[in-house]
Amino acid sequence: MRKRLRDLGISIGRLRPGNYNAITDVPGVLVGHSTLIFDEPRVARTGVTIILPREGTIWKNHAFAATHTLNGNGEMTGIHWIAESGMLASPIAITNTAQVGTAHEALNNYACEFGWTEVWDLPVVAETWDGWLNDMAAFHVRKDHVYQAIESAQSGPVAEGNVGGGTGMICHEFKGGIGTASRLAACASGTYTVGALVQANYGAREDLRVDGVPVGREISIEKVPSARAAPPLGGSIIVIIATDAPLVHSQCKRLAQRATIGLARVGGMGYNSSGDIFLAFATGNQLANETQKPYALQMLPNDQLDGLFLGVVEAVEEAILNALTAAETMTGFKGRTALKLPLDELERIMRRNQK
Amino acid sequence: MRKRLRDLGISIGRLRPGNYNAITDVPGVLVGHSTLIFDEPRVARTGVTIILPREGTIWKNHAFAATHTLNGNGEMTGIHWIAESGMLASPIAITNTAQVGTAHEALNNYACEFGWTEVWDLPVVAETWDGWLNDMAAFHVRKDHVYQAIESAQSGPVAEGNVGGGTGMICHEFKGGIGTASRLAACASGTYTVGALVQANYGAREDLRVDGVPVGREISIEKVPSARAAPPLGGSIIVIIATDAPLVHSQCKRLAQRATIGLARVGGMGYNSSGDIFLAFATGNQLANETQKPYALQMLPNDQLDGLFLGVVEAVEEAILNALTAAETMTGFKGRTALKLPLDELERIMRRNQK
Amino acid sequence: MRKRLRDLGISIGRLRPGNYNAITDVPGVLVGHSTLIFDEPRVARTGVTIILPREGTIWKNHAFAATHTLNGNGEMTGIHWIAESGMLASPIAITNTAQVGTAHEALNNYACEFGWTEVWDLPVVAETWDGWLNDMAAFHVRKDHVYQAIESAQSGPVAEGNVGGGTGMICHEFKGGIGTASRLAACASGTYTVGALVQANYGAREDLRVDGVPVGREISIEKVPSARAAPPLGGSIIVIIATDAPLVHSQCKRLAQRATIGLARVGGMGYNSSGDIFLAFATGNQLANETQKPYALQMLPNDQLDGLFLGVVEAVEEAILNALTAAETMTGFKGRTALKLPLDELERIMRRNQK
Amino acid sequence: MRKRLRDLGISIGRLRPGNYNAITDVPGVLVGHSTLIFDEPRVARTGVTIILPREGTIWKNHAFAATHTLNGNGEMTGIHWIAESGMLASPIAITNTAQVGTAHEALNNYACEFGWTEVWDLPVVAETWDGWLNDMAAFHVRKDHVYQAIESAQSGPVAEGNVGGGTGMICHEFKGGIGTASRLAACASGTYTVGALVQANYGAREDLRVDGVPVGREISIEKVPSARAAPPLGGSIIVIIATDAPLVHSQCKRLAQRATIGLARVGGMGYNSSGDIFLAFATGNQLANETQKPYALQMLPNDQLDGLFLGVVEAVEEAILNALTAAETMTGFKGRTALKLPLDELERIMRRNQK
Repeated sequence: MRKRLRDLGISIGRLRPGNYNAITDVPGVLVGHSTLIFDEPRVARTGVTIILPREGTIWKNHAFAATHTLNGNGEMTGIHWIAESGMLASPIAITNTAQVGTAHEALNNYACEFGWTEVWDLPVVAETWDGWLNDMAAFHVRKDHVYQAIESAQSGPVAEGNVGGGTGMICHEFKGGIGTASRLAACASGTYTVGALVQANYGAREDLRVDGVPVGREISIEKVPSARAAPPLGGSIIVIIATDAPLVHSQCKRLAQRATIGLARVGGMGYNSSGDIFLAFATGNQLANETQKPYALQMLPNDQLDGLFLGVVEAVEEAILNALTAAETMTGFKGRTALKLPLDELERIMRRNQK
Repeated sequence: MRKRLRDLGISIGRLRPGNYNAITDVPGVLVGHSTLIFDEPRVARTGVTIILPREGTIWKNHAFAATHTLNGNGEMTGIHWIAESGMLASPIAITNTAQVGTAHEALNNYACEFGWTEVWDLPVVAETWDGWLNDMAAFHVRKDHVYQAIESAQSGPVAEGNVGGGTGMICHEFKGGIGTASRLAACASGTYTVGALVQANYGAREDLRVDGVPVGREISIEKVPSARAAPPLGGSIIVIIATDAPLVHSQCKRLAQRATIGLARVGGMGYNSSGDIFLAFATGNQLANETQKPYALQMLPNDQLDGLFLGVVEAVEEAILNALTAAETMTGFKGRTALKLPLDELERIMRRNQK
Repeated sequence: MRKRLRDLGISIGRLRPGNYNAITDVPGVLVGHSTLIFDEPRVARTGVTIILPREGTIWKNHAFAATHTLNGNGEMTGIHWIAESGMLASPIAITNTAQVGTAHEALNNYACEFGWTEVWDLPVVAETWDGWLNDMAAFHVRKDHVYQAIESAQSGPVAEGNVGGGTGMICHEFKGGIGTASRLAACASGTYTVGALVQANYGAREDLRVDGVPVGREISIEKVPSARAAPPLGGSIIVIIATDAPLVHSQCKRLAQRATIGLARVGGMGYNSSGDIFLAFATGNQLANETQKPYALQMLPNDQLDGLFLGVVEAVEEAILNALTAAETMTGFKGRTALKLPLDELERIMRRNQK
Repeated sequence: MRKRLRDLGISIGRLRPGNYNAITDVPGVLVGHSTLIFDEPRVARTGVTIILPREGTIWKNHAFAATHTLNGNGEMTGIHWIAESGMLASPIAITNTAQVGTAHEALNNYACEFGWTEVWDLPVVAETWDGWLNDMAAFHVRKDHVYQAIESAQSGPVAEGNVGGGTGMICHEFKGGIGTASRLAACASGTYTVGALVQANYGAREDLRVDGVPVGREISIEKVPSARAAPPLGGSIIVIIATDAPLVHSQCKRLAQRATIGLARVGGMGYNSSGDIFLAFATGNQLANETQKPYALQMLPNDQLDGLFLGVVEAVEEAILNALTAAETMTGFKGRTALKLPLDELERIMRRNQK
């Protein structure tokens, strides 16, 4: 891993990040990666990332949740029940496009073998396309890799860049991948944490902005060739938002849609070939999967949500940029190379623009 | 008014009705009508019906709510904010298609004059088309009629048939109008009341069923001519569902969609010209419009909702049938006549089929 | 297989069925099943059903499509792109809840191996829960079964009842499974075919109606014990609707929602534990996946859709009933038995009620 | 009117504007304003803006259309039928929050009196809140003002700033109002025009950006006091997007959502009190309201939409900025003043940042 955006002295937004500036700042949220990088017998530049809300007990203690789709050229399973019940009841896996099924079956197996649930689940599995650097037709990800990502999930700092599901991803024509960030939002009722984790694999070079500065236009394709020869295909971004605020489903939906604003600030357009799908969950209420009596809930009044909206926007913006600054140059399938975002160029451009 | 379905000895469904078998069985729900029937200077067969949740204090103490549209050839205003906030914050008015605006401005005026709110509202106004019996182009409904409906709103028995917004409506080619019904649903957490009020103005004769019996087919058009010479135009049904159960927005949405099932049982098809729009609200939680701290809520677990779903289905089914059995034959605009559903025929057909 | 509803002399609805009274009456629609029934080493009562629009070329020649969810306690993958693009671009697989991932990966493999596509797909896989008769934790369905279902897909008569994905399903507490039916809808622009295929695994005995007659109530649980000892868990119905009418996405969405009406007529309620998810596609327009110029389309005017709506309603209603009349009694996992709907009882009850 | 953004030498985006850089660059789109500015008997700073697609014949020749809501604290009527039919069949009116009903009834009256339609319509009326500068409780807008806006509607240059529905609006704490812009998007199938018109009444000073430059932060509140003393209430933005591309409903929906990206670039956040509602319509197909045979349509392939997406983003961004640069300082209700965006400051800040 290289650096995070703030390590470069670039601070974005008005709100303060949490302790790790990561989705794991939301108590109980664990992140694990399984990263597959090898060349034989076939080229692997892929993996799977797992997000375990409530330290993996989400199957027994659900969380209010909702999704928003900016552009649906992608997949996130499990959304029918999230929309209907208002709740997330499954871990979240993010992997490559071809292996949504693999991860889906693996999560069902895991639940089955390890007794995390008594009834069948509707796993949440999302994807972006890594077929430029990864030989996707080899279907490298197997059940064991999903298990391994689950078992390695932890709180604290999150590996970014070329890891887990983000291993082979490309963002704004630079090497992309996994990124994360967080914000503390002060509301009248108290201060809550909002975290975002992205698998960033979208975007055109010329649209890339860092805190409003048109960085993508200023790093010439001549100097730093594009990660892709061809026009972007299958570019996508999955955004997972977590908060410990006491929100209900309809409020999670509002948070999920705000990911669009953060993405737009960096240069996301929701192009036709992109699967830009966002999921937000809120752990501020306990929702045991078996109960005889009504849940006793707290719900933040709607007019206190603006701080959380801003938190989502800034966390998503910075998570994407962290994916870019963390990712290393990678050569993969068919000898193709995706170059990293040059940090010296980035710093130079930002210095010149932000006085 | 003639009779209600149960007065004819026809009982539908498995659940027991509330005290009045009306939406007013949900505590705090008031209903008022303003009915306009006159011939000079232009023919009026129209009106407005008002539903006041929380005895009219809904502007200050909101209710979780949601809508569902089976077929959107109609209007219900105010739904953007209901979807976004998850809450209903306005009285509900139902009138004719041309006068949605009239009722909308009147509700804004009322709020303004009578101090029910400090900020501006997004009123909920719905409609169905009564232009076959009513000279709609005369715009008969005025602000005063809306006020009068508000001020006459009360609990207890609800006038049905040719009253309020339902005055000039036609249903399954018989005279239709306003109808209501309710059910008591026993859940593990307690027994809750579900009430429905409909403005029924939809449907083809041949599709009409009463408790599954194809009554419409058995009352020949030769014997009882259709209420309309022409094929149905602008037929629609507005359904308002109320419950005192402690539900949140996502659960109200589920209740709202269940109105389709009740409508389908009677013979609704969601034909292209129909505006079949349903709103459900739940008063089981208090949601003061001004608060500094999180709301303390109760929420019925999702796996306890089946009884409420059944309650919605049965209440909607019976409310429509009550509209039909209550409505009297009416002659109106251009001398057109809409014949009432003949109760003796109905009883005869039902007796023959239900042994 | 036993009998189809019409073989019993029971005809439902106003419209005439197509040649096979099956979804395959829509030209180009093929259906294949892979059925797994064995006891060793672990009990299998499951399978997969494949629907191939356009004789399997849907990957290259898409079809306008849309989905509707009555109750989302289930899964259908691929819906983000259907909603975004308005089109179906994948075969459809229906299997058991635990093996959505298996079928998903298999469809990706198939596309990859057989060159049906150049880019990655977003397969459409749906499910219902067969864990009462099938040892789901054994994950019986494998890639080869999916391939086999694809390769066996054909036009003409469709096997119903205990076949394919429907093998272990239960409906209204009788043995359920796969059913299909079709209707010819005469519009001003011409006559179109509407077909439905269901995987029926939902519902309470007491709600079952056949053409309005409360058959479920009249077949006493004492005489014919319920298929399940416990209250229904995981009950669901997947409905696939096909038409050759020239519809666009928004019109397919309207057709998909009309499945609710057909389901309601049989006694579906969208109970909380049910995944009632409907997909409608229309093959009346050609949509090559690679084109440089605008598509030239035909679009049926909205005011000609009523016949198609009725066609959907009747086809769904009869498809469910065909699943019930075709399914045989089955004993499976843990020695549990699901009894078939007794056809003699059905005929007796219907004769008594329909004079 | 003062200046447009481009008159200041500030050009945003990659695409070229149309002839007028206005929504009226889309052939057939007319815009009319009725502006009410007077102090007696009560203070009026309000009005109504009308958009007439197809030179006012939209009632007889519909257009594919769709809406998207970023934050639903606002109103746009008529959306049920737009979503169901996929089409816009009404002129569009934008006014203040209290007078949605007034404009709604006026459009119904107009249709009725002038024979633009034979059946009843479901008018599209949207709003933002101008109660800080306008005495909204006086209900200044009357039927005649709506008629006048309709009758004054024309092609060519569009008045911006303090006109029509935008008269009393405030944007990013400067004086806001009506703005418009357009883009030419080159697709493989040809070049199409995209135009946007906004009624801009949203946003916080500190979030305002012009082409990425944080202009809002750099114009100190000390130097140029905020337009509002109190925190923003009821801030909202209505965006109307028009194109002559041959799109269908599902594609208009995609365009509508892209307005969020343009808004985000300027600093929109979709705050809780905001009604951020977007409508997109496409005139590239003719949809006569009475037809017996299928429509013959053209449909741009989805993979040619990226240019139109970019066009929407840039047109919305520039339309908002044009509203700001055109609006003049206004003093109104209770002597409150909303200061204009100081153009000299804007130019100075932009010069310093864009080398």
